[in-house]
Amino acid sequence: MNIKQISFVGGDMRIVHLIEFFSKEDYQIRVYGFDKFDINCNNVVKCETLVEAINGAQIVIGPLPFSSNGDTLNAPFNSSPILISDLIELLNSTQVLIGGRFDTKLSTLFAENNIKAIDILAREEFAVLNAISTAEGAIQIAMENSQSTLHNTPILVLGFGRIGKILCKMLDGLGADVYCEARKFSDIAWIKAYGYKPIHLKELDQHLDKFNLFINTIPFVVFDKERIDKMHKDSIFIDLASKPGGIDIEYGKEKNINIILALSLPGKVAQITAATHLKETIGNIFEEI
Amino acid sequence: MNIKQISFVGGDMRIVHLIEFFSKEDYQIRVYGFDKFDINCNNVVKCETLVEAINGAQIVIGPLPFSSNGDTLNAPFNSSPILISDLIELLNSTQVLIGGRFDTKLSTLFAENNIKAIDILAREEFAVLNAISTAEGAIQIAMENSQSTLHNTPILVLGFGRIGKILCKMLDGLGADVYCEARKFSDIAWIKAYGYKPIHLKELDQHLDKFNLFINTIPFVVFDKERIDKMHKDSIFIDLASKPGGIDIEYGKEKNINIILALSLPGKVAQITAATHLKETIGNIFEEI
Amino acid sequence: MNIKQISFVGGDMRIVHLIEFFSKEDYQIRVYGFDKFDINCNNVVKCETLVEAINGAQIVIGPLPFSSNGDTLNAPFNSSPILISDLIELLNSTQVLIGGRFDTKLSTLFAENNIKAIDILAREEFAVLNAISTAEGAIQIAMENSQSTLHNTPILVLGFGRIGKILCKMLDGLGADVYCEARKFSDIAWIKAYGYKPIHLKELDQHLDKFNLFINTIPFVVFDKERIDKMHKDSIFIDLASKPGGIDIEYGKEKNINIILALSLPGKVAQITAATHLKETIGNIFEEI
Amino acid sequence: MNIKQISFVGGDMRIVHLIEFFSKEDYQIRVYGFDKFDINCNNVVKCETLVEAINGAQIVIGPLPFSSNGDTLNAPFNSSPILISDLIELLNSTQVLIGGRFDTKLSTLFAENNIKAIDILAREEFAVLNAISTAEGAIQIAMENSQSTLHNTPILVLGFGRIGKILCKMLDGLGADVYCEARKFSDIAWIKAYGYKPIHLKELDQHLDKFNLFINTIPFVVFDKERIDKMHKDSIFIDLASKPGGIDIEYGKEKNINIILALSLPGKVAQITAATHLKETIGNIFEEI
Repeated sequence: MNIKQISFVGGDMRIVHLIEFFSKEDYQIRVYGFDKFDINCNNVVKCETLVEAINGAQIVIGPLPFSSNGDTLNAPFNSSPILISDLIELLNSTQVLIGGRFDTKLSTLFAENNIKAIDILAREEFAVLNAISTAEGAIQIAMENSQSTLHNTPILVLGFGRIGKILCKMLDGLGADVYCEARKFSDIAWIKAYGYKPIHLKELDQHLDKFNLFINTIPFVVFDKERIDKMHKDSIFIDLASKPGGIDIEYGKEKNINIILALSLPGKVAQITAATHLKETIGNIFEEI
Repeated sequence: MNIKQISFVGGDMRIVHLIEFFSKEDYQIRVYGFDKFDINCNNVVKCETLVEAINGAQIVIGPLPFSSNGDTLNAPFNSSPILISDLIELLNSTQVLIGGRFDTKLSTLFAENNIKAIDILAREEFAVLNAISTAEGAIQIAMENSQSTLHNTPILVLGFGRIGKILCKMLDGLGADVYCEARKFSDIAWIKAYGYKPIHLKELDQHLDKFNLFINTIPFVVFDKERIDKMHKDSIFIDLASKPGGIDIEYGKEKNINIILALSLPGKVAQITAATHLKETIGNIFEEI
Repeated sequence: MNIKQISFVGGDMRIVHLIEFFSKEDYQIRVYGFDKFDINCNNVVKCETLVEAINGAQIVIGPLPFSSNGDTLNAPFNSSPILISDLIELLNSTQVLIGGRFDTKLSTLFAENNIKAIDILAREEFAVLNAISTAEGAIQIAMENSQSTLHNTPILVLGFGRIGKILCKMLDGLGADVYCEARKFSDIAWIKAYGYKPIHLKELDQHLDKFNLFINTIPFVVFDKERIDKMHKDSIFIDLASKPGGIDIEYGKEKNINIILALSLPGKVAQITAATHLKETIGNIFEEI
Repeated sequence: MNIKQISFVGGDMRIVHLIEFFSKEDYQIRVYGFDKFDINCNNVVKCETLVEAINGAQIVIGPLPFSSNGDTLNAPFNSSPILISDLIELLNSTQVLIGGRFDTKLSTLFAENNIKAIDILAREEFAVLNAISTAEGAIQIAMENSQSTLHNTPILVLGFGRIGKILCKMLDGLGADVYCEARKFSDIAWIKAYGYKPIHLKELDQHLDKFNLFINTIPFVVFDKERIDKMHKDSIFIDLASKPGGIDIEYGKEKNINIILALSLPGKVAQITAATHLKETIGNIFEEI
C-alpha cells in the first residue's frame, strides 16, 4: 500500500509520542482529539473536525484500548466525546483502521460496515515488546519494595510465558538467584537451558521457604491458603497477572504478605518505549497491507 | 506405575552411560545386546538371551535411533543382530518400550501388537536439551575453524528455533557480536528482547558482507547462488540443518566458502551429557505413565 | 583469636540487622546504645551501661560512620550521647574495635591509647560488596526517572572503577546499550573484553549526543559548561560520585539537565544487604586477627 | 609524532596480518625479513636490504618475541638471519622501535645505543586483549577434551587475574556452573559480584570432588600430591600458567589426571585476532609518542 497520509484520532500520551515519531518521517500527519493538549510537532495538521482528519488518509490510528464503553473512543486529551459511530460512518473500505483491543462487538461492527480494522494488541510481536516493559517495571517495583538487593537474592518467577522469559533474563542479568516455576517439562528444559533454576509445579511446595520475593505471571490462583501458609511472613508478592491473579489476596494480606498488584505496566513505567513499540509494530503492519 | 525392573536392549555409548546412571538408583537392571563391551557397573545383570532380559521388566529401553533398517535394533556393541520381530513377540501389553525415532512402519507394528511404545525423540523437552549440546558443538567447530576469536566477531545465526535460541545465547555469552536472521516479526521481537541483533529475511542480502562466519539451522536452501555471490570468499558456513541444508553446497565450494556439515552433534561431542538428557526425559516419562 | 563475646555499641538499622545475624550464631552478644529501639532477638543481652557492654568482649563493633562530630558515636537509636572518650577508657589492648571511617584524629587517638581498631570502610572487599548495592540503587533511580525502559537504551557510565564495573554488568544484563567512558587504555581493553562499548575520554565530546541517560562515578567535574552544552536538554544525569561530583550542577540545571545526586545508596536502598556485607567482612576480619 | 613511514622487520603470521591491516591506512609501508612468504598487499614495499627498510621510517616494528637467542630477530619467514646488532647500528634516536619481550640485556643494549624501544608485551592493555584469546582457546580445549557439555557442568577456574576474569565470564556465558578459586578477600567479593561461585584457597580441599574439569591460571603448584589425591581420577586439568604451572605433572599423570599444558594460545588459536590486538595497542602507542 502506498501510504501518504496518516491520521490519528484520540489516544493517550503513548499516541502523542507516536505522533511525534511519525512526524519526523515522510508522511502527511493529521490529528483529531487532542484539543486539551499542545502537540508540538512540525508537519502535523491539527484538525477541527473528525471528517477533516479522516478524509484522504490511507491509515487511521485510534486509541489503545480503543474504547472503554463501546460508544466513544478513549480520548483523554479531548474536551468532547468522539463517537465510534461517527468514525465508522466516515471510514471507507480502502482505509485501514488501527487500534487496540477490538472486542467481538467492535469487530462485528467493523465487519458489517466493511471497515478494514487491525488490532495491535492482538499482534504477537507487540505482546513480546510489551513484555520487556512489563518485566522492567516489575523489577523496579521489586527494588522499591525490598530491603535487599536483587543481586544474590533468591527470587521465584511464576510462569515461563512471554513476561516470565524476559523477567528471568533480566533478573539473571542483575545477578539475582533466579528460580522459575513451570508445569510443562519442555518449559523446565528451557529454563535449564537458559541457566535459571527450574521448579516444577508439583514440587513447588517444598521450595516455598527459600524465597522472600515472588513475581507472578500466571492468571490462576496458584497461591491458595495452603501455599500462603508455607510462605515467609514478610514476603513480597508482585502480581503481574490479570484477574483473578495468582494469589488469594485477602488471606495473603491477613498473613502479612506484601501483595502488590501491578497491571498495565508498559503504559505507566515507560511511555516513550511503549510508543517505540507501537511504531515498530505499525511498521510491520504497513509491510503486510 | 510402580517400576522395579528396567531392561536395556541394544544401543550405543549414550545407552551405556545411561545404564551406568540408572544402576546407581534403586532399580533392578538387566541388559542385553552389549556382548562386545564390558559394562562395568554393579547391580547390572548381563543377560545371555533376549527373553531373559525382557521377562519381568516394567520398562524396556531400546536404541536411539531404534533401527536403521526396519528389521534389527541398532546394537553396535553386540556381535549378533537383534530382530525387532523377536522383541515384539516377547513384549506384553503391560510393559512400556522406550526408544528413539519410531517411524510409521514401526509405530504401526507396535500398535498392531498392542505394545505401548514411547518415542524419546518426539519429546519436546528432549529436543530442547539436545539443542544445548548441538549449540555447544557448533561453537566448538566454529572455534576450530576460525583464525579469529568468536569474541567481538560478527556472527550470523540463521533461524531462531530451538538451536538458534540457545546458540545465540551462548555466542552472546562468549562476547560475540550476534546477529540472528528470522522471518516472523514475533521472532524479530524476541531476538531484540534477548539483546541480539535481528535481521529480517527480506533484508538479509544487504547484511551479508558483514560476516565471515555463518551458522545455519534452517532446513531450506536460503543461500542460493545469488546470496553466495554476496558472501566473502573466505567465509565459514557451519550447517546444522538436516537435508537439504541451508546452502547450495556445490556452488558454495566453487566460490571458496568453507562449508562444514555438522549433523547429530549431541551424540558426537558430548556423550555423557546426551545420556544425562536421556535420563531426565525418561524420568519425565516415568511420571506420566 | 578465640571469639566468645561480641558487643555492639551504637549504630543504625544496618547494625540492628547485623546484631540479628550474629545472634543466630554461637556468640554471646551484648548491645548498648539502642534504648529507643526494640531489638527483638533471642540471646542478645541489652546492657544498661557502656561498661557492662564492653566488659568481657573480645570484639566491640561500633557505628559506620563511627562519629559525625569527633566526640560522640553515631547512635541514632539511643536517647543519650555515647562519648568516644568513655569508650576509649573502657577498652583494653586485647580487645578489637571495629567501626567505619576512622579519620586521622580518631586513628591517632586509638593508637595513643593502645587500642586495636579496624576500619571496615577501608577494607577493599567491603568496598566491592558495597558497590553492588550502589549500582543497583543507581539502576532503580534510573528506572524511576526515565520514560523509557533501560532495555535497548544507550546509557553512558562514566568511570570503570568498582561501581562502574558492576553498573556496566547489571545494565548489560538488563539489555541496555552500555557505553563506558575511561581514560586508561587498559580500562578501554577491559570494557571491550566485557562486551560493553568503550569511549576514551578524549573522544567523549563527539559521543555526547547519543545519550539521554548518564551515570557518573568519577569525583571530578568532567561535565563542564562546554560538555553540558553538547548534551540533550532532557537528559538525566545520575551522579554517584562524592564531592565535587562530575558535573557543573548550577549550569546543568540551568540547561534543563535532570541532575540527581545519589550518595550513600547502600544504606538507603538495601539495608539488609548492607548488613550482610558487614557480616561477611567482619567474618574475614575474624580470620585475620 | 607525525608518522608517515612504518617499517616491519621480521615476525610471524601475526605480523603478516598486521602489515595487511596497516597497508589499508594512509602510511608508507616497507617490509624486510619475509623473503620466503608472499606478502600480497598493495602499497607495501618489499625491501632487499635492512638499510632500505629502516631508512626514512618513523616507526620500526619487529617480532614478538623479538629474539629467541639474543643475537638475531625472530624471522621465521626469512631465509637468512637478521642480526640485532645490524638493526641497532641503523636505527637513529628519532626513530621508535616497537617489539615484544625486551629482556634486561636487550633493554640495556637499546639504552646504550640511544634507541627508543617500546615493548608491546609490557603494555597492560595488550595483556588484557591477549587474555581474551587465551580464555577462548582454553574453552576450545575444554570442549575438545570433555564428553560433557560445558553447559551445566561445574568447572573450577584457579586464579582471578586477567585470564581468570575473562574465562569465568565466558564460561558463565556458555551456561557452565562456574567456580573460581582465589586467595584475596577482595577477589572473593569480586567473584561474588560477577555472579560466579567463590572458593577461598583455604577451603579448596573440601570442594575438589565437585569437579571433573579444572582450568588453572596460577603459576604456582597449588595441586600437589595431597590435592591430586582428592581429585576424581578422570579429571581434566588445563594449565594455562607458565612454568612451573599449577600441578605436579608427574604425579598427576600417574593418577590418571588428563593434564593439558596450553601456553601461548593467542598466537595459536586466533592469529587474526592477535594481529587486531597488536594493531590496537600500537595505535595507543602512536597516541603517546
